[in-house]
Amino acid sequence: MSDIEIFDLGDLQLQRGEVLMDAKLAYGTYGTLNDAKDNVIVMPHGYSLQHPDMEWLIGPDMALNPEKYFIIVPNMFGNGLSSSPSNTSAPHDGPRFPKVTIGDNVRVQHRLVTEKYGVERIRLVTGWSMGGLQTFQWASLYPDMVERMAPTCGAAKCARHNYVFLEGVKAAITADATWNNGDYDEPPKVGLRAMSRVYAGWGFSQTFYREEEDLKLGFETLEDFLVGFWEGLFMERDANNLLTMLWTWQHGDISDNALYNGDINKALGAIEAKAFVMPCRHDLYFPPEDSKIEVAQMPNAELRVFESIYGHIAAFSLNPVDVEFHNDTLRELLET
Amino acid sequence: MSDIEIFDLGDLQLQRGEVLMDAKLAYGTYGTLNDAKDNVIVMPHGYSLQHPDMEWLIGPDMALNPEKYFIIVPNMFGNGLSSSPSNTSAPHDGPRFPKVTIGDNVRVQHRLVTEKYGVERIRLVTGWSMGGLQTFQWASLYPDMVERMAPTCGAAKCARHNYVFLEGVKAAITADATWNNGDYDEPPKVGLRAMSRVYAGWGFSQTFYREEEDLKLGFETLEDFLVGFWEGLFMERDANNLLTMLWTWQHGDISDNALYNGDINKALGAIEAKAFVMPCRHDLYFPPEDSKIEVAQMPNAELRVFESIYGHIAAFSLNPVDVEFHNDTLRELLET
Repeated sequence: MSDIEIFDLGDLQLQRGEVLMDAKLAYGTYGTLNDAKDNVIVMPHGYSLQHPDMEWLIGPDMALNPEKYFIIVPNMFGNGLSSSPSNTSAPHDGPRFPKVTIGDNVRVQHRLVTEKYGVERIRLVTGWSMGGLQTFQWASLYPDMVERMAPTCGAAKCARHNYVFLEGVKAAITADATWNNGDYDEPPKVGLRAMSRVYAGWGFSQTFYREEEDLKLGFETLEDFLVGFWEGLFMERDANNLLTMLWTWQHGDISDNALYNGDINKALGAIEAKAFVMPCRHDLYFPPEDSKIEVAQMPNAELRVFESIYGHIAAFSLNPVDVEFHNDTLRELLET
Repeated sequence: MSDIEIFDLGDLQLQRGEVLMDAKLAYGTYGTLNDAKDNVIVMPHGYSLQHPDMEWLIGPDMALNPEKYFIIVPNMFGNGLSSSPSNTSAPHDGPRFPKVTIGDNVRVQHRLVTEKYGVERIRLVTGWSMGGLQTFQWASLYPDMVERMAPTCGAAKCARHNYVFLEGVKAAITADATWNNGDYDEPPKVGLRAMSRVYAGWGFSQTFYREEEDLKLGFETLEDFLVGFWEGLFMERDANNLLTMLWTWQHGDISDNALYNGDINKALGAIEAKAFVMPCRHDLYFPPEDSKIEVAQMPNAELRVFESIYGHIAAFSLNPVDVEFHNDTLRELLET
């Protein structure tokens, strides 16, 4: 649907001190910016995804209607389209790619929206998983600008349990000696396969597997699902890219900046947007209890829970019932 | 407390067809068998453990009182004390150690109890995790013999989600090239470290980590907990032993025998024991929903839930409140 567009960031000063030379923000757009510049939706994406992966949520019959809104889907640093280990020249190639925070990501998205498009108000920021983290970061860093927000299966700060889950993912990739501290000649396939299997238990709920939803999705066996779905998600990704985004996730904290100095309640309390915070009842790494704690700190937020056995994947495209709830909830939010 | 005792099994015909030569069942005992031979408790242990690891639940002030009961703690095949890849000579050494089912384990325990001790009735079978699986297997294979049962954080059959979680653990160990398909010269330390990190997210609940219970246990930081607790659990284990027990777990199914022919409801329905089935509310791989489904098939069973944020580890020794509930519930069961 959308071609890839590039916003040149020049030499980018990053939060943790490094300068990323000739940095690029890749993004996709859907629809047309109106003259009043007040029809903008920003939708950051989740871990290991790229902007086309979000197109299932956009369409003329959907809440995110490109005939009405101008929808920008920015690519995260490290996702292979924006500046990433896999597409950056020396000295920042491969494992030498600098550490990028969620704040770094959102600040360059803000530059894109303001400098390139001259936009001052955003109708809605919404995103899934790490896209939810970016959604929180947008609304907290730019409270005057973000009118509505809907983070789905995400959080404002990486929970300690979530951090531990990601330690397992990281350890699986890096246990493969082919990885070679990031200077690999061939992809560390054994490690990527291992991380796919580690991820598989987390992505969907226990009930999803008990009720054999994987087979209902068309896979022949559980093993077929582990290979066809999970390995399919990760085997073709670049390991350094995955590790870069994983670091961003593990260190995700919307209060990690001079405005809030690590005070997460202050960072949440500063949000002015009308917010629907949308966890899934059976998400194993963003449990709704975490979202409830966040909502209690936000002045204008409601909890809207995916009642789904799809767990973390409820807010992705697989389950029609969840997609309907997702779309209806976004529509309701956009109409307020 | 207990020396290790050995029961010689001779050349053991295993369920999947292989014969394990000169097989050994190692076990520990606590207390004295009375003349009536009616004071026996059998307590199988969980994954990667050995009989001394269960001694925290045994004592003169505990429900499992060795002054009253004769408590037998059998070691699983593959745990390093009973026949295992690490202590078996060629041709069944290392990765050539045969596949052992949970039925194989329980059948040799039955031989120990009947042939060595002449016991016909068992007062209680109880065990944690894979020990719970063995508990179900005992009561289902020998319904005339098992009077009471209390599986804690376990199941009668490895759930599909649990299987997937274990795929991640297995993939982490075997991603280390040092593993060399089980013929390693040095332990695959990178793989063992990786599997420890994978396990860490599953062992305790999200809330456990949110409330920083790891720090309350005396660890300085989350990283300190991952190393000191989790790597401490697994780094000194033999990788082939871990993989042997993991196979047993993944293929655990108390109906996988000629009696029940894979009909799990029939296998559960055959149990006559008075049963307290004891999952933990926040166990991430034995969710209480699974236990509830099992209890519905059992003629004489009640659900007794650990209301604990310790998750799967609630039924181990770490949390005094859980230990008290555990002990009180076993006492109540023994007194019925």
